[in-house]
Amino acid sequence: MKGGRIRRLYFKRNVSFSEVPIASTQSHSLKEGEMPMQQIDEKESREFIGPKLPLTPKWVFSFGEGKADGSANMKELLGGKGAGLAEMTNLGISVPPGFTITTKACVEYAESGEYPTGMWEQVFAALRRVEQSMGMGFGDPKNPLLVSVRSGAQASMPGMMDTVLNVGLTPETVKGLADKTDNERFAQDSYRRFITMFGSIVMGVPREYFEAILNRKKEEKKVAHETQFGIGALRDLVESFKFLIKKETGKNFPDEVNEQLRMAIHAVFSSWNGARAVTYRRIYGIPDSWGTAANIQAMVFGNMGYTSGTGVAFTRDPASGDKNFFGECLMNAQGEDVVAGIRTPLPVIALRENALEAYEELVRTYKNLEKQYRDMLDLEFTIQEGKLYMLQTRVGKRTGIAAVRIAIDMVREGLISKREALLRVAPDQLAQYLYPIFDTKEESKAELLGKGLPAGPGAAAGRIALTSDQAVKMKASGERVVLVREETSPDDIHGMDAATGFLTVRGGMTSHAAVVGRQMGKVCVVGCEAVEVIDRQSIRIGTKVFREGDYISVNGSTGKVYAGDIPVVESEIIQVIQGKLDPKTSEKYRLFSMLLSWAADEKKLKVRANADVPDQAKIARGFGAEGIGLCRTEHMFFAEDRLPIMQKMILARTKEDREKFLDQLLPLQKADFIGLYRAMEGFPVTIRLLDPPLHEFLPKREELMVEVTQLEFLGINPAKLTEKRQLLARVEELHEFNPMLGLRGCRLGITMPEITRMQVRAIMEAACELAKKGKKIIPEIMIPLVGMVSEMKAQKDLVRKVAQETMDRYGIKIEYLVGTMIELPRACVTADQIAIEAEFFSFGTNDLTQTTFGFSRDDAAKFIDFYRTNNLMDADPFATLDRGGVGAMIKQGIAGGRKTRSGIKLGICGEHGGDPSSIEFFHELGLDYVSCSPYRVAIAILAAAQAAIKEEGKEK
Amino acid sequence: MKGGRIRRLYFKRNVSFSEVPIASTQSHSLKEGEMPMQQIDEKESREFIGPKLPLTPKWVFSFGEGKADGSANMKELLGGKGAGLAEMTNLGISVPPGFTITTKACVEYAESGEYPTGMWEQVFAALRRVEQSMGMGFGDPKNPLLVSVRSGAQASMPGMMDTVLNVGLTPETVKGLADKTDNERFAQDSYRRFITMFGSIVMGVPREYFEAILNRKKEEKKVAHETQFGIGALRDLVESFKFLIKKETGKNFPDEVNEQLRMAIHAVFSSWNGARAVTYRRIYGIPDSWGTAANIQAMVFGNMGYTSGTGVAFTRDPASGDKNFFGECLMNAQGEDVVAGIRTPLPVIALRENALEAYEELVRTYKNLEKQYRDMLDLEFTIQEGKLYMLQTRVGKRTGIAAVRIAIDMVREGLISKREALLRVAPDQLAQYLYPIFDTKEESKAELLGKGLPAGPGAAAGRIALTSDQAVKMKASGERVVLVREETSPDDIHGMDAATGFLTVRGGMTSHAAVVGRQMGKVCVVGCEAVEVIDRQSIRIGTKVFREGDYISVNGSTGKVYAGDIPVVESEIIQVIQGKLDPKTSEKYRLFSMLLSWAADEKKLKVRANADVPDQAKIARGFGAEGIGLCRTEHMFFAEDRLPIMQKMILARTKEDREKFLDQLLPLQKADFIGLYRAMEGFPVTIRLLDPPLHEFLPKREELMVEVTQLEFLGINPAKLTEKRQLLARVEELHEFNPMLGLRGCRLGITMPEITRMQVRAIMEAACELAKKGKKIIPEIMIPLVGMVSEMKAQKDLVRKVAQETMDRYGIKIEYLVGTMIELPRACVTADQIAIEAEFFSFGTNDLTQTTFGFSRDDAAKFIDFYRTNNLMDADPFATLDRGGVGAMIKQGIAGGRKTRSGIKLGICGEHGGDPSSIEFFHELGLDYVSCSPYRVAIAILAAAQAAIKEEGKEK
Repeated sequence: MKGGRIRRLYFKRNVSFSEVPIASTQSHSLKEGEMPMQQIDEKESREFIGPKLPLTPKWVFSFGEGKADGSANMKELLGGKGAGLAEMTNLGISVPPGFTITTKACVEYAESGEYPTGMWEQVFAALRRVEQSMGMGFGDPKNPLLVSVRSGAQASMPGMMDTVLNVGLTPETVKGLADKTDNERFAQDSYRRFITMFGSIVMGVPREYFEAILNRKKEEKKVAHETQFGIGALRDLVESFKFLIKKETGKNFPDEVNEQLRMAIHAVFSSWNGARAVTYRRIYGIPDSWGTAANIQAMVFGNMGYTSGTGVAFTRDPASGDKNFFGECLMNAQGEDVVAGIRTPLPVIALRENALEAYEELVRTYKNLEKQYRDMLDLEFTIQEGKLYMLQTRVGKRTGIAAVRIAIDMVREGLISKREALLRVAPDQLAQYLYPIFDTKEESKAELLGKGLPAGPGAAAGRIALTSDQAVKMKASGERVVLVREETSPDDIHGMDAATGFLTVRGGMTSHAAVVGRQMGKVCVVGCEAVEVIDRQSIRIGTKVFREGDYISVNGSTGKVYAGDIPVVESEIIQVIQGKLDPKTSEKYRLFSMLLSWAADEKKLKVRANADVPDQAKIARGFGAEGIGLCRTEHMFFAEDRLPIMQKMILARTKEDREKFLDQLLPLQKADFIGLYRAMEGFPVTIRLLDPPLHEFLPKREELMVEVTQLEFLGINPAKLTEKRQLLARVEELHEFNPMLGLRGCRLGITMPEITRMQVRAIMEAACELAKKGKKIIPEIMIPLVGMVSEMKAQKDLVRKVAQETMDRYGIKIEYLVGTMIELPRACVTADQIAIEAEFFSFGTNDLTQTTFGFSRDDAAKFIDFYRTNNLMDADPFATLDRGGVGAMIKQGIAGGRKTRSGIKLGICGEHGGDPSSIEFFHELGLDYVSCSPYRVAIAILAAAQAAIKEEGKEK
Repeated sequence: MKGGRIRRLYFKRNVSFSEVPIASTQSHSLKEGEMPMQQIDEKESREFIGPKLPLTPKWVFSFGEGKADGSANMKELLGGKGAGLAEMTNLGISVPPGFTITTKACVEYAESGEYPTGMWEQVFAALRRVEQSMGMGFGDPKNPLLVSVRSGAQASMPGMMDTVLNVGLTPETVKGLADKTDNERFAQDSYRRFITMFGSIVMGVPREYFEAILNRKKEEKKVAHETQFGIGALRDLVESFKFLIKKETGKNFPDEVNEQLRMAIHAVFSSWNGARAVTYRRIYGIPDSWGTAANIQAMVFGNMGYTSGTGVAFTRDPASGDKNFFGECLMNAQGEDVVAGIRTPLPVIALRENALEAYEELVRTYKNLEKQYRDMLDLEFTIQEGKLYMLQTRVGKRTGIAAVRIAIDMVREGLISKREALLRVAPDQLAQYLYPIFDTKEESKAELLGKGLPAGPGAAAGRIALTSDQAVKMKASGERVVLVREETSPDDIHGMDAATGFLTVRGGMTSHAAVVGRQMGKVCVVGCEAVEVIDRQSIRIGTKVFREGDYISVNGSTGKVYAGDIPVVESEIIQVIQGKLDPKTSEKYRLFSMLLSWAADEKKLKVRANADVPDQAKIARGFGAEGIGLCRTEHMFFAEDRLPIMQKMILARTKEDREKFLDQLLPLQKADFIGLYRAMEGFPVTIRLLDPPLHEFLPKREELMVEVTQLEFLGINPAKLTEKRQLLARVEELHEFNPMLGLRGCRLGITMPEITRMQVRAIMEAACELAKKGKKIIPEIMIPLVGMVSEMKAQKDLVRKVAQETMDRYGIKIEYLVGTMIELPRACVTADQIAIEAEFFSFGTNDLTQTTFGFSRDDAAKFIDFYRTNNLMDADPFATLDRGGVGAMIKQGIAGGRKTRSGIKLGICGEHGGDPSSIEFFHELGLDYVSCSPYRVAIAILAAAQAAIKEEGKEK
């Protein structure tokens, strides 16, 4: 019973787990240096059981007859499967007897190339115990014991040998099996299946070769399916298969049962160093030293008539978390039949009709197990002639919605503590509460066009707009819009705002579209190379041409792009926060907010939001944000009513002209701040002064060059030509080869202090006006991209001067701070000097990652992807903080800052502020707060709580 | 007698010191943290003389009658001028008596706003001694003593009060002076000059106001020059000036001599905190705590007839270094007359005619002083009625050529040691040996068009070429060419190679043009904004229009651009190295190479060169380079015969196609390496694998967009349009927002390993072929832009594999190293990991400066200039290493590298490898070598020797 089967079963029920991101805390993908949580328990327990080991190393752990050498917490030594089988046995659950060869034996073999002394002796001694327990003999022609051989590491790992069933079949024992079951066809069919499995998995003959022979036989016998073969045909197949194996491997198929067992075990251990398994370990950071265990277990048969059967079940609903026993089964069947998909499985309750006793046993068993494991479980079982055998149990995967419900229910049931409940939900799973999703059924039927990077989760369907202006127009006429662009830039903000979702041809997970998308909570798929812009009116996706106005659907959780208008279901949580839905009517909101309130009690880090406009700030507050950690003032200048003024300011030749246009921007910017302050009353609001290079606000250089060339050829509008030429000349002046490293950040405010003056006036006037009305306003003014203390000092002096003038004008005093973003390596190494002037540090981990690595986040996607695929890099450093490099920089920055100003306020406001693994690191560093996009505030709160709980666990 | 006068004197003799960069070791501009060399001695001596100070602080040091309280090594306390006057007095040289108020008094005043207790008492006591010595009385109407008041800091500092002469004149003393000298006109003229000087310098009335009154008087009196005024007119002027001062300041002109003295001294000390002086200190890193001294000295008069006179002299020729007493004088004159420039000065020998005794005394004095100071000196003197008075002596400024000659001569004369000689030449001065220069006379007559940054020293004149292709064509037809471009890029290499010099509109001191210019040893002026490209055929510089083919001249040492073809004189040293000139016939070469050989004996750092072609390597060897520290292989691909193949390689869609074109490049690249190895036989040659982003080899995106637009409009060449569109599509694919942080460096070799394979084959085949011929070849293969050890490992494994295959093919074994450039902050902080794989580190300080600061060196010039002008930054970090930030990074890199691999070879190969201040830092860090452009090798050798000598001095 394998993953394939589970997938199949649920696919039939329209809950496709391969499509929905699922995770459980126990099996989330592991990052370097991170230990799976259960791991910690096991480590401790191993120390405890250590002395129990005999002086001769114990390589084999038996289970059977209600007694096992191992237990649930020995996953490290016995693998997940072995530990589960031992635990079930100890609980008195009916498990076919067997034994587990430890992961240590695998590691010894991998390192030395030889099996540990005594291992094989222990294996065959254990086999004797199985024989005794079953009253059968391995290789006994009269009463043959058959066994299954399975691998089983700590974490499930694709690329390793999986399962060989029916080991122990030989010409002699086949006869014995036929006699014993009085069913020669069954025996021969089992034999040819065994040879196929063993020949392909253990002896390495490609599976297709067996299939080819099988198909030829079907033609010869003129049958549609192999179930229709008679005994003779099955015997022929056995001979043909054996001949094939001899031809391909030069070796005879082993007719000796101990040899079969030895070879199968060897195959399990060898597969640990197979290419795919090694690659998988590299990618997920699983250490080579884990090794895999091998499980050998007596065979039971679900295909011995209609009181036999096989099935899979979850102790609670893995999609909703409802407390319903939930599973499917097939009577008179083996796992393979289910995989073949000829018969439709029945709900597990159907067992009551054919095998009531086994069903009741199953219910007792699952309740017992869940109580024991204190978690929702995934079970596999077989019923042989009315008797239930449990074959596997493990913590079940579940959706985020289910994870929260199960965790909260189990607290209520007294099974787990609140802290355990908080550890049971992977923070990223909370995102599932927030985004609208496609109707699953409809999505599965839709035409898939291509796939990009899933940059902004959720589902969006709408009409295609190819320009931002068009998107705004279409939205105005009441359409849902999906904006499709080569790439987006800050002057697409209005179009992005108008669109439900966007799709770009270029860019990575932290491209402009992706970052803005997540911040706005929009659905976003980036880097979808299947999209080709044909002209201003049409695009091609894959092979299909779309015109502006046609419908497409994009799934920002999977990166998939579909033709047509797939129906979308909206998130209740957002509706409640926006006041569109009464929280009392939403069970989802109740559970979500309960978990968050528990998390808020545990966490040490404060969580703030990166928000530029009141709407974002309100959403963030709804999730529990404790302030704004980053307001990017430039986003305010891209709004339609402001951009033209901003452009005039930039094009101005004199300081006086610049000041004139800045004066026009002042009231607009002030109004923004008033909105933001109101939404965050009583909480600090960190406002960053203008950061991007000024040319970002102007038309693109190359587009102007083309326009000028066109106007030159047309020759009908000399005035416009002159105007465009002048504009181009100014754009040329501002052009930079590497804008990321150019005239931006505090370099702007220093070389053009009138900009800083205007912004500080707007910040302080807004604060003063509200303070006069009795509001508590806490502005924190942040100077971007400081690399030298001289820069910080120059800007701080100016800020203080303008702020004081403003407060004097209003006759009021407001407490405010002036600090900086630490986002350059030089700022980290000279942080002690910068802290002389800066009252707080906020680590800008996006830019710091760019400069520390020398990676442009707009350009690096192509080689970062290559690096990750080729094991040169574990994670995208723009998504998960690079602790070894960028983290080392941050540590220097913290040390320097604290050296000069011991209580300096420290935060981070890069994309990493919303990444759980990074948040754990920031917690360890002892930062005061993290700031992330509004839609990740809940995730950050949970991650911060987990970090605090885990740290306490470590300290104990 | 001031700087103005010296300049004037030499200007007349066509050796214009203001045009030629001059420096002496004692007064070279100071960097932060650097102490002037003489400073060290003084520190020591101060400790020695410390106990001599009386318990009441001594604020005033007298000198006169062969005895002085101070001495030459008390420059710190007495300033340069004061120490010189004391020293001369002690040596028995005739110096008008006087006294020096210490720098400490100035500092006390600057800090507390009050003069130290006892200072004024000491001042007037010292004044009494001067009166006694002169037999005159200060303010005595019968026999009035007049004094001069001068400031004098440790280093000469513009912006401070300079000199007030004739202090002590009042209506009463004027009369006394007239009576005593029997020359009322002289007395009145002295008085009105004193009022002008005192009124403007001490009392702050603008000098122009005095001039205006003077001019009105000339009109009134109908005289052409003020020397023609009669006594009456002079008396009128005195009254008018006093009235002017009262009107402007509200105060009467002081008629009390002690009040005059107090005010003049106060003006000296106040000028220390004047705006210009403060700015100057910020720029040159002079600490505020130095303070200035004030020197008060009895007046002597050179204008008391034809046995009186005044002059300035150098003890040796400051231009050539020849051992000739060298100076000029005017008889019956004062300093001001010389400045006015009405009379032509005479060679100093002319004194023999009018004042033989004084002349002989002067010769004795200069010999005595030179012996005492053990250096070439700059002297100022006055002869009053046949008696010589020395007014100033200080170490004289000199050209680089003179510095070397004087240093070597003085060793031969037994005056100084070789080590002292090495410290006497500022390393940058050696550049004067290397570049062709304009004929000074011709340059002074040429029409100045504009000024840019002096990026590549030397002088070039030639015909204007506006494209690189045109430059090549013009050169082929035998023309000297000056290439004028908006900016240069790597595909201008052929044009830059063809040109004698280049001039760009944009870019800073480390722009592409500047870096390549210095490496090629070409004359280069960048960032000359006076140049405007009108069209493909013509440019405007300033107001003048030039067409391609017109002559211009550019001075890469001053940044000046001239119209016309100024004659150029070539460097002998280069001619000798190139084998065009017999070294025996070149005295310059003899001296230059002698100094270098002394330096080579002292230095600890090895000096290598950055060279890409054999010619550069040969030049570098000629200067004594001990290997190549950086061969940029990409420069090889920009050559005309290779670029088309390179472009095809880049445009290829498959690895197979790429390999086909790489195979074509292989023999060409191999031939390059063979040439390089031959030129550097026996020395290590560090070859960096391909570094720049591939789009640098393709036409520019925006140019292609314009071309496509044009072809669309023309519609006559659909085939070409299609071709260009396809090219544009590929260029678009490769386009990057921030190429500096994009797909370049080892990221290229990792994602396209076939490029690395080809390059390593070429490197190793070349080495094997030469090794087979018995040559000793030492290749060091350098992986660029490594940020993670995984990158280093991936490339190193590939390099080792290909190298082994190649050596096996040739059946020979070659020792070679594989290392990396450390040029990213992440490489510095993870250097311990990278050193597991890397066998050497070469710090790439250009890129490391870019990423540490977040400065793009192509874009940062505009704000770096602003920062420097506004005191936010001391030096351009791309020219002089930023020790606090980038230096801290390098230290981490070194520590990490040595931790893992204790003997790891460490070098640097950025632009800083040729900067003396940075070299001193690298010496202190204990690097193995620096590598710089071939034309800076000699400079680096001398700088490395100085660093070693200074360090030894410190240790003592």
